[in-house]
Amino acid sequence: MTRKVHVHLVTPVVTKGIRDMNEIAPFARPDLIFSQSELDIGPPSIECEFDEALAVPDTIAKAIAAEQAGADAVIIDCMGDPGLHPVREALHIPVLGPGETTMHWAAMLGHRFSIVTVLESVKPMLTSMTRRYGVDSKFASCRVVDVPVLELVERFAEVQQRLAEQARAAVLEDDAHAIILGCTGFIGCASTIDAFLKADGITVPVLDPIPVTVCMAEAMVRAGLSHSRRTYPTPRPKANIGFAMPTGWPAP
Amino acid sequence: MTRKVHVHLVTPVVTKGIRDMNEIAPFARPDLIFSQSELDIGPPSIECEFDEALAVPDTIAKAIAAEQAGADAVIIDCMGDPGLHPVREALHIPVLGPGETTMHWAAMLGHRFSIVTVLESVKPMLTSMTRRYGVDSKFASCRVVDVPVLELVERFAEVQQRLAEQARAAVLEDDAHAIILGCTGFIGCASTIDAFLKADGITVPVLDPIPVTVCMAEAMVRAGLSHSRRTYPTPRPKANIGFAMPTGWPAP
Amino acid sequence: MTRKVHVHLVTPVVTKGIRDMNEIAPFARPDLIFSQSELDIGPPSIECEFDEALAVPDTIAKAIAAEQAGADAVIIDCMGDPGLHPVREALHIPVLGPGETTMHWAAMLGHRFSIVTVLESVKPMLTSMTRRYGVDSKFASCRVVDVPVLELVERFAEVQQRLAEQARAAVLEDDAHAIILGCTGFIGCASTIDAFLKADGITVPVLDPIPVTVCMAEAMVRAGLSHSRRTYPTPRPKANIGFAMPTGWPAP
Amino acid sequence: MTRKVHVHLVTPVVTKGIRDMNEIAPFARPDLIFSQSELDIGPPSIECEFDEALAVPDTIAKAIAAEQAGADAVIIDCMGDPGLHPVREALHIPVLGPGETTMHWAAMLGHRFSIVTVLESVKPMLTSMTRRYGVDSKFASCRVVDVPVLELVERFAEVQQRLAEQARAAVLEDDAHAIILGCTGFIGCASTIDAFLKADGITVPVLDPIPVTVCMAEAMVRAGLSHSRRTYPTPRPKANIGFAMPTGWPAP
Amino acid sequence: MTRKVHVHLVTPVVTKGIRDMNEIAPFARPDLIFSQSELDIGPPSIECEFDEALAVPDTIAKAIAAEQAGADAVIIDCMGDPGLHPVREALHIPVLGPGETTMHWAAMLGHRFSIVTVLESVKPMLTSMTRRYGVDSKFASCRVVDVPVLELVERFAEVQQRLAEQARAAVLEDDAHAIILGCTGFIGCASTIDAFLKADGITVPVLDPIPVTVCMAEAMVRAGLSHSRRTYPTPRPKANIGFAMPTGWPAP
Amino acid sequence: MTRKVHVHLVTPVVTKGIRDMNEIAPFARPDLIFSQSELDIGPPSIECEFDEALAVPDTIAKAIAAEQAGADAVIIDCMGDPGLHPVREALHIPVLGPGETTMHWAAMLGHRFSIVTVLESVKPMLTSMTRRYGVDSKFASCRVVDVPVLELVERFAEVQQRLAEQARAAVLEDDAHAIILGCTGFIGCASTIDAFLKADGITVPVLDPIPVTVCMAEAMVRAGLSHSRRTYPTPRPKANIGFAMPTGWPAP
Repeated sequence: MTRKVHVHLVTPVVTKGIRDMNEIAPFARPDLIFSQSELDIGPPSIECEFDEALAVPDTIAKAIAAEQAGADAVIIDCMGDPGLHPVREALHIPVLGPGETTMHWAAMLGHRFSIVTVLESVKPMLTSMTRRYGVDSKFASCRVVDVPVLELVERFAEVQQRLAEQARAAVLEDDAHAIILGCTGFIGCASTIDAFLKADGITVPVLDPIPVTVCMAEAMVRAGLSHSRRTYPTPRPKANIGFAMPTGWPAP
Repeated sequence: MTRKVHVHLVTPVVTKGIRDMNEIAPFARPDLIFSQSELDIGPPSIECEFDEALAVPDTIAKAIAAEQAGADAVIIDCMGDPGLHPVREALHIPVLGPGETTMHWAAMLGHRFSIVTVLESVKPMLTSMTRRYGVDSKFASCRVVDVPVLELVERFAEVQQRLAEQARAAVLEDDAHAIILGCTGFIGCASTIDAFLKADGITVPVLDPIPVTVCMAEAMVRAGLSHSRRTYPTPRPKANIGFAMPTGWPAP
Repeated sequence: MTRKVHVHLVTPVVTKGIRDMNEIAPFARPDLIFSQSELDIGPPSIECEFDEALAVPDTIAKAIAAEQAGADAVIIDCMGDPGLHPVREALHIPVLGPGETTMHWAAMLGHRFSIVTVLESVKPMLTSMTRRYGVDSKFASCRVVDVPVLELVERFAEVQQRLAEQARAAVLEDDAHAIILGCTGFIGCASTIDAFLKADGITVPVLDPIPVTVCMAEAMVRAGLSHSRRTYPTPRPKANIGFAMPTGWPAP
Repeated sequence: MTRKVHVHLVTPVVTKGIRDMNEIAPFARPDLIFSQSELDIGPPSIECEFDEALAVPDTIAKAIAAEQAGADAVIIDCMGDPGLHPVREALHIPVLGPGETTMHWAAMLGHRFSIVTVLESVKPMLTSMTRRYGVDSKFASCRVVDVPVLELVERFAEVQQRLAEQARAAVLEDDAHAIILGCTGFIGCASTIDAFLKADGITVPVLDPIPVTVCMAEAMVRAGLSHSRRTYPTPRPKANIGFAMPTGWPAP
Repeated sequence: MTRKVHVHLVTPVVTKGIRDMNEIAPFARPDLIFSQSELDIGPPSIECEFDEALAVPDTIAKAIAAEQAGADAVIIDCMGDPGLHPVREALHIPVLGPGETTMHWAAMLGHRFSIVTVLESVKPMLTSMTRRYGVDSKFASCRVVDVPVLELVERFAEVQQRLAEQARAAVLEDDAHAIILGCTGFIGCASTIDAFLKADGITVPVLDPIPVTVCMAEAMVRAGLSHSRRTYPTPRPKANIGFAMPTGWPAP
Repeated sequence: MTRKVHVHLVTPVVTKGIRDMNEIAPFARPDLIFSQSELDIGPPSIECEFDEALAVPDTIAKAIAAEQAGADAVIIDCMGDPGLHPVREALHIPVLGPGETTMHWAAMLGHRFSIVTVLESVKPMLTSMTRRYGVDSKFASCRVVDVPVLELVERFAEVQQRLAEQARAAVLEDDAHAIILGCTGFIGCASTIDAFLKADGITVPVLDPIPVTVCMAEAMVRAGLSHSRRTYPTPRPKANIGFAMPTGWPAP
């Protein structure tokens, strides 16, 4: 019998319902199940490093809770990968960020990738990540649709149109060979954009971050791998103020 | 019902039986099945770029045959990724090399990785690949066990011991944070090496290339992605001599 | 009359008194004054990215308060530069991190620099910063004295001895041309280490991070410069939970 | 008396007569002589990595034959340098590729170079070579004339016009300081393009790959140098199938 | 009482009066004083590496004289930093170049910087410096106003207008996050350009090289640091011809 | 009849006779002739950037004189390539430096090269050149024999022994695949070192800079190429003081 893999998503914002699990359901299988949580403390959406910073402490807490509840892997459900490194220090199971995952997948799928994201304010954050992750030699450009995260749902048709136009411009003007949808709120848009590009004779992979990261999380669990303790050392117990140490952790 | 994913391995040598499919069986599941083929024309093993060059034309032919037989993804079963790029040009399904795949996985699992491979003659080839794949900023070192590929089975205990020692040296002397087993013939050694390292207090991921690449191939298929046509353009039909154009390809 | 420059240090831990302002007093002048604050919420010391993550939200709050109280520049008093980028987004005055500042100074003072810090767990964090800051081509190595932050004061003689030995090893074995003291808790050790190295015929700059960053903060203020809004965009007002928006900020 | 240097060109395609040796004759001198061979097995032209892969085995055989016939150096007569590394492993004399040679010459002649080649499908191959050869920091862009290799002769006037236009665009739009003609089939076009550019006030080197590589091969022979055995290890004798081991090689 | 810092500028040209010390006066304070000298041998202005080469020997002599006269730091008053490295070898006090200093400051103030300089002939020199200084990953572009150095004063209004336009183009077309004024003759233009950009909604730092370098020189002196002897070794005494060895140097 | 190529060496020191043209004679042929000049103004030897700076103005003058006397190419006879870039600006014929030339040749001959030079004080200069020339990704290490330039002749046996030992250490400890003799005063040592290494089973190219650069100069002349005016712009005529403008140059 096949081992069942349980992947937990921490959506690192306080906006209840922003992550519709029906969108992820098509990727579930009898031996791949999902759970999800949102934050109690943090920002309603993430559009710069200030927003990220406020999201991280409770993201860590929610990720620890997920591991303790039996998850096999945790995904931080935001392209900026807020808290990716501290969460890896705190957990033992694989912890994945859609930013890091899609950038490495794109680097394997073609020579150069572009990212199309929500707002100008997100560009410095994503560009900086390409350096930290060591994929900057594969990075072509970052473009935006200029729509805030919390307006994505209501302006869906407009968002898809702009995504497609910016993706085409990335290919034709910036010489992108692959396109990363640069916000996890763009879930489900890849096939429309792919069709739009193909109508122009352009065949490049369009990476939808959450599906890609879910598949990668399962792959990493089935391969029996987790992150390096030499890169992500276990935190020493300390008398932190304002952040309850998780149940079961050694006393400081 | 879940889609069944069919992954085909092309073992790019003429040594029949060198790939024991029982070693891969543990990674099969009801919805993940494997097939495999070896070469009719080529070298008995691959230990330098000369060997690789002789392997590539029939690797391409075998990969085309696998796609035509219904495979969902093809893996080239050698760390040197012989023919990776031309096979991608010729096929439409994802084509994976264990060299490229493990290097990117290692880059996601830790800051720096080392490779432990068979012979000195393989080092320039693998080192050169880190540059081509754009992961050279994550590459710590390449070390060898000094055992030829075709002696791996008969000298198994010795190979495991040397692998473990070189992996430890890579961590302690070269500051590696992750270890890649640098030959697909090392399959099944990761847990022994991991235990050896843990006994010395070292906790780093040890990547066994074929299991990792099998899991990645399934992930890529389930995510609905394949390689970029802008990086891997479809070959134009030509009157090649000595290489029969595949059935069904357009006439030159 | 000369403009008086006011530099504020946010020491991003909850350990009261860990920053002895007498150590910084020698750098004060009639036209350069200092103030300092510590956190109410956060960790007692910072030794990995987990600790950093818990420190950032209140570091932001304390930095905003300092700007509103009239500071001309803010220094985040920790080599890991926790919160450097979000604080820059939130403020208008220059915000400096001793990590970033000493790395760029070292790059100007010699061809290659090494960092000597407290613990192994800090190395991945500092190494990763060299990439993010774009000075990785100047980075020679990171070494440790293997003493936790909160034991630095009581084990002062031992710390100085180990710092000197590791600095010498960095020069002789790693070909460092400059040495960065990799913890702001090492304040005041530079001259002792410099003398130790000179006794061995080694003349290289030894950078004490807080003095360097204080001088740099004054320089940046006097040059009339602050950080780029294109790199550090002003956060959009939002209904964050658990983080009171600063007085005077626009309502979300 | 001067040593006579004998340079052999392997034109790695099966199209007889594609290399007109009269074009190279102007570079011959009493002490520099040429010979040439084409393939019996392989593609009619090379325009992607698939074509290259089919060309390599017989390129190796022809290069071995040339060395055994007394050549002092071998040039692989195609900008993609097919088989460059395996041929170097198999031979003892210098083996040169016009791709590698012109890229390093261009890097010595100016700060940044652009390549103008035949088809879009060749761009990924050439771009990837800049990384493998370590000259990517000098690479400005790759442009195309959009004419297949086998049509170059019949469309010669049109080709020259497009080459000149793309070279000018490379200088003015991509800030190229030197131009590489990116196909050995462009032989003899450099002076026309140079004149075209000078008429626009642009003075940059235009590198014609075969003349450059011929001169470099002679230089390397006269300097008494050949490739490193540590980078290009001698292949171990093996029972390859479908590739007759060269006369005089040790038995496997 | 505060230590008085004395910064000396060597303006490395023979054009008397080209450096108006009134322009620097606003940066003087009771504890920061300036002196300046020009060359007796050299070019009237610096616009390429040929001009630089002629300026360096007397720049060295003037810098040695300044140190012997008691200066605490020397600034070479030209963006090309002529003689920066040999002067550092010859002196013991900090020696700063406005090119190196502004590039590192710009790298700290934003993700990417552009330089706007005088003439096309200066671009290769400045671009080459970004590589030598290790800040090339932060370098966006170099643009020019196309006005020779010796015409800057008489064409001041035109120069400011072009500077502003090129700065705007650098931000909007080259994605610059910070602007370096690429000639020390542009002193005093920063605020005008800043206002021009702000009128277009662009808020980026505009670095005026001499004020920045003066502030940096004071900072380096107050931090007690000077350049590394391992990077800048003391010259061995030699019987040079045509360059009088400085008074007090050991005999060869 | 073959064109005769005339290569001129400027030995950039005032030590008459330091360059024995008999050492270069073996590379002369009926159609390749040499001339040489030394400086009237400058240092007796070059061992740091201070020495270089004093050598450059008269190196420029001597190179201009050589071009006016009919030379086809100029070589600056010192590994530090003093004045390489300003001389290229001033001349129209190819100007070669043995530093740049051997570094690019070594990059073509193997994956990584080491340099063995005279003194520690030369290392920063040579290391810095690898960055400026864009070959730093190929650079393994720089080692020294610790003998000043002017003692090379009298301590010849000792120098050869140390060169061989350092070359071996570079291969075995630094993983060098090619060795550059890092001083033009080492001329003629390559075959001895090569034999020493081969006795240890090491087969790597050993590059003797002057023979390599002479062969390259001829190659560049015969290929009809010279340096890019966009990288090396012609100096504008100016009223320089202390440097007579060359005969025939336009008046300022």
